[in-house]
Amino acid sequence: MSLNWESQAQKGKDVLNNSIPKQWLVPVDRLPPASQKSVVEFPRSSGLLSTHELLITDMTATALVEEMGKGALTAEEVVTAFLKRAVMGHQMLNFATEFLADEALARAEELDAYYRRTGKLVGPLHGVPISVKEHISMKNRTCNTGYVAWTDKVYTEDALLLQLLSKAGAVFHVRTNQPQSLMHLCCSNNITGTTVNPYNRTLTPGGSSGGEGASMGFRCAPLGIGTDIGGSIRCPAAFCGAYGFRPSSLRNPATGIKVASSGQENIRGVVGPMSSRSIEDLELFQRAVLDQEPWDVETSLMPVPWKNVAPSREMTVAIMWDDGWVRPHPPITRALHFAREKLVAAGIKVVDWEPYKHQHGWDIISALYYPDAGAKQRQVLAQSGEPARPLTEWALSYAGNKTLSQEETWNLQEQREIFKDEYHGLMKARGVDFIISPNYPGVAAVMGESQYWNYTAIWNIVDLPSATFPSGLSVDPKLDALTELDKKYVPRDGVDEREWQKYQGPERYEGAPIGLQIAGKRYRDEETLAAAKLVEEIVSGNSKSKL
Amino acid sequence: MSLNWESQAQKGKDVLNNSIPKQWLVPVDRLPPASQKSVVEFPRSSGLLSTHELLITDMTATALVEEMGKGALTAEEVVTAFLKRAVMGHQMLNFATEFLADEALARAEELDAYYRRTGKLVGPLHGVPISVKEHISMKNRTCNTGYVAWTDKVYTEDALLLQLLSKAGAVFHVRTNQPQSLMHLCCSNNITGTTVNPYNRTLTPGGSSGGEGASMGFRCAPLGIGTDIGGSIRCPAAFCGAYGFRPSSLRNPATGIKVASSGQENIRGVVGPMSSRSIEDLELFQRAVLDQEPWDVETSLMPVPWKNVAPSREMTVAIMWDDGWVRPHPPITRALHFAREKLVAAGIKVVDWEPYKHQHGWDIISALYYPDAGAKQRQVLAQSGEPARPLTEWALSYAGNKTLSQEETWNLQEQREIFKDEYHGLMKARGVDFIISPNYPGVAAVMGESQYWNYTAIWNIVDLPSATFPSGLSVDPKLDALTELDKKYVPRDGVDEREWQKYQGPERYEGAPIGLQIAGKRYRDEETLAAAKLVEEIVSGNSKSKL
Repeated sequence: MSLNWESQAQKGKDVLNNSIPKQWLVPVDRLPPASQKSVVEFPRSSGLLSTHELLITDMTATALVEEMGKGALTAEEVVTAFLKRAVMGHQMLNFATEFLADEALARAEELDAYYRRTGKLVGPLHGVPISVKEHISMKNRTCNTGYVAWTDKVYTEDALLLQLLSKAGAVFHVRTNQPQSLMHLCCSNNITGTTVNPYNRTLTPGGSSGGEGASMGFRCAPLGIGTDIGGSIRCPAAFCGAYGFRPSSLRNPATGIKVASSGQENIRGVVGPMSSRSIEDLELFQRAVLDQEPWDVETSLMPVPWKNVAPSREMTVAIMWDDGWVRPHPPITRALHFAREKLVAAGIKVVDWEPYKHQHGWDIISALYYPDAGAKQRQVLAQSGEPARPLTEWALSYAGNKTLSQEETWNLQEQREIFKDEYHGLMKARGVDFIISPNYPGVAAVMGESQYWNYTAIWNIVDLPSATFPSGLSVDPKLDALTELDKKYVPRDGVDEREWQKYQGPERYEGAPIGLQIAGKRYRDEETLAAAKLVEEIVSGNSKSKL
Repeated sequence: MSLNWESQAQKGKDVLNNSIPKQWLVPVDRLPPASQKSVVEFPRSSGLLSTHELLITDMTATALVEEMGKGALTAEEVVTAFLKRAVMGHQMLNFATEFLADEALARAEELDAYYRRTGKLVGPLHGVPISVKEHISMKNRTCNTGYVAWTDKVYTEDALLLQLLSKAGAVFHVRTNQPQSLMHLCCSNNITGTTVNPYNRTLTPGGSSGGEGASMGFRCAPLGIGTDIGGSIRCPAAFCGAYGFRPSSLRNPATGIKVASSGQENIRGVVGPMSSRSIEDLELFQRAVLDQEPWDVETSLMPVPWKNVAPSREMTVAIMWDDGWVRPHPPITRALHFAREKLVAAGIKVVDWEPYKHQHGWDIISALYYPDAGAKQRQVLAQSGEPARPLTEWALSYAGNKTLSQEETWNLQEQREIFKDEYHGLMKARGVDFIISPNYPGVAAVMGESQYWNYTAIWNIVDLPSATFPSGLSVDPKLDALTELDKKYVPRDGVDEREWQKYQGPERYEGAPIGLQIAGKRYRDEETLAAAKLVEEIVSGNSKSKL
């Protein structure tokens, strides 16, 4: 145990500070006051970005690639615009762990040169800036995974996913923050501190891909990369008014993504795309990766190509109003009603989803997160002597201080498989193709309060592909006020009570967007994104921005 | 612990004895003497089966279905012929744990009635008798998995695989023996005793699917079902002059297959087909199962349909002469040379395969077989008080009496994944599509001596689909005698020495067939069987028997 974890942590801070492209820093006196909650309008209102840069940074990745393919935009101007916006965003949100400006611009120049030479794009992600969660390792760079002890750990290879994205033409311009232990639906660590939500800086951007949430919410990149073992892609997407996709397990390559419990397979984490603007961009990302057959390198992956699936109105969508354990807050319930009305009006068949043993699912997954009672994570904390943050302690408390025996682990895995098969069978028996549900009991949580994971973790345990999208609605001071009936709500148990009491009223969540989640059957990743696209279009009317 | 495990074991013996169709028992005085080693000619030489029955039982499943489809054979006569042969085989080999004569015949009648009514077959396995390893559970029947404690355990569902095969028209007529703990490459337990090899009854049929090995070798069924976590399909196939296929993991459904360490995923066992006559039948089985999309019920399976792949001579086949640890016995090396010559003569590109860290692979897999130090298996043994058999102690010794911590388990799993990806990368880098290798250091082992697993287990750890087929050769008293050079062989270590000393000379293995193994790249199951078919045709000249 180091006597001075702070000096070790400083190494991580230095990586960040030394990487910030100073030329784009907003003068401190032009930044909004710390008391200003929402900063999402700042890029436009500040006058610091040109109209052209605002146009670019409001575009989808799909549209950007299209324009670059026509020669109407260069990779250099695209990357520059997003870098500027990212630096600005970082000053207000503290979402970055390292900027990669020089490499990104050099890569953009290469891409432009290739285009000038050949008239062709390098690949389907040509010139698309992508922000990357820090624990996805990069060649010759540090990778700390949110641990002070690892601030000077350096790897010799890019993570396989980054290699593939790079071949497809993507440009990595910024790496993003994550919580200590990666096990918070929040985003704070002892290295680069706490990331805040661009819609309301008193709220968390969610986690563990919280830096990505902020990056997407502020449009520091059209696409980002998160990881998810209990909601870590979907919660930050929902909290930040963005898009996220948790693919089925064993589709996207995990080689080179660093976690404390390396080799743990009891509950599989997945890596997946986040997007600031559209479901279509999530598809673009997935197709670009899977078209390169990652299973021919990371052989545990399923050898299943990405299929082209067109959205179809011939589907049955179920709405899960409540998971039977924790009642969602009023804005969430309002958005579900809103979605239902829009879908019914559009002629989609909508039914209610009766949750099936979600508490049982949580009992399994929470026990399997830490079969070692969190020993490995505590070991890495102890290596530097850094204090465990409150939400780390919270997550570790799932383990209940008890190491599972191998037999107990096997029993839980067997239960997991039974539960997963039962859940799938239930969707078939009920004739339900997709389930729309909350991502979280509330909208973006107040900093430090995000304790209930099971609106997202349930799809991890049953391994359903699931996408998060904005409903188009935000918290409304009038519509979301507690009614007399709400005030009389008698919680089912202590957990329900704890979560319900966090609401208090819409004021606490001023300006927060309301995200929804849609899950499809296992391995129907393509169908799930296709349905998400149609549902989002119907619900929020989002038709994307194009030049 | 029961004071009388023998009376508990008797329950398993009773299941068997009560099930034997007495009308087909060969009178004791017509059986060959116990001293007669080979009994494979007995069905023909004894005069106890009609010419028609001999014809039927010499046919492949594919040919049988074809004939039933033409109305040239009825399911009833097919099932009857195989039942008779199975009863005869059991008397000489002790391979069965339960006969299912009444149900099989009733099912055959149903199938015939269906055919008479519609002129159609029920499915691709219409009327095909399949022998089934005992631990694949059957509705309302006991399933002991080789443990005395479980002799009266009854399940309420057929294993998912059996449900699918049954829908495809298969008829289950006999259940087959397995060793205590399922972890011997041999076949003896304290319930129904020891199964012997039809080619030489002083030898083991292999294991753990040893009852299946004997069943295939004696042609008690055209198809059988085995399971394999380290060679348990391929060894008995090789030892008994038959065919076996270990598919990639997560393709065939495992629901309802009973093992002591249920829920264990550290090393995945697989279930797969065995065949008495042909590679083609292994394909028939795989297609019949996967065409029913088992992943829509057992959701962990890969949603990958069975592809039609035609054999192609445009392939590079490597020959692994030796795994770098244990030198194969002379007959095996002779068969590899024979195969090489035939393949080269047929214009196939053949290279040598330099093994890659096979001992490292064994270190990983053998540790991961028993992360609980075998506690669970000992627990089930203790439940009845039955003594552990010598090869059970041998297998449990892999665990080294040490329970792995969760972190140690994760580390090994991480190493497993790295090794698997490296091995796959090596095949690509070397331009090798398939690897032909031994299944075992020798031909069928002398009873109790089968200790070295790594010619098959290596493909379990790197998860390559692999098929076993007969080379067409058998042990030859002259060709396989130890040369002066052989006698001077200096083993690499104690393991190599132990295995080499088991050879002694061809006399010890009189009549034993020599099997070979072919492995393909991960998930290229279809390509592997297609290549196996072509290779076998070239090497052994087997063109199958048809009516």
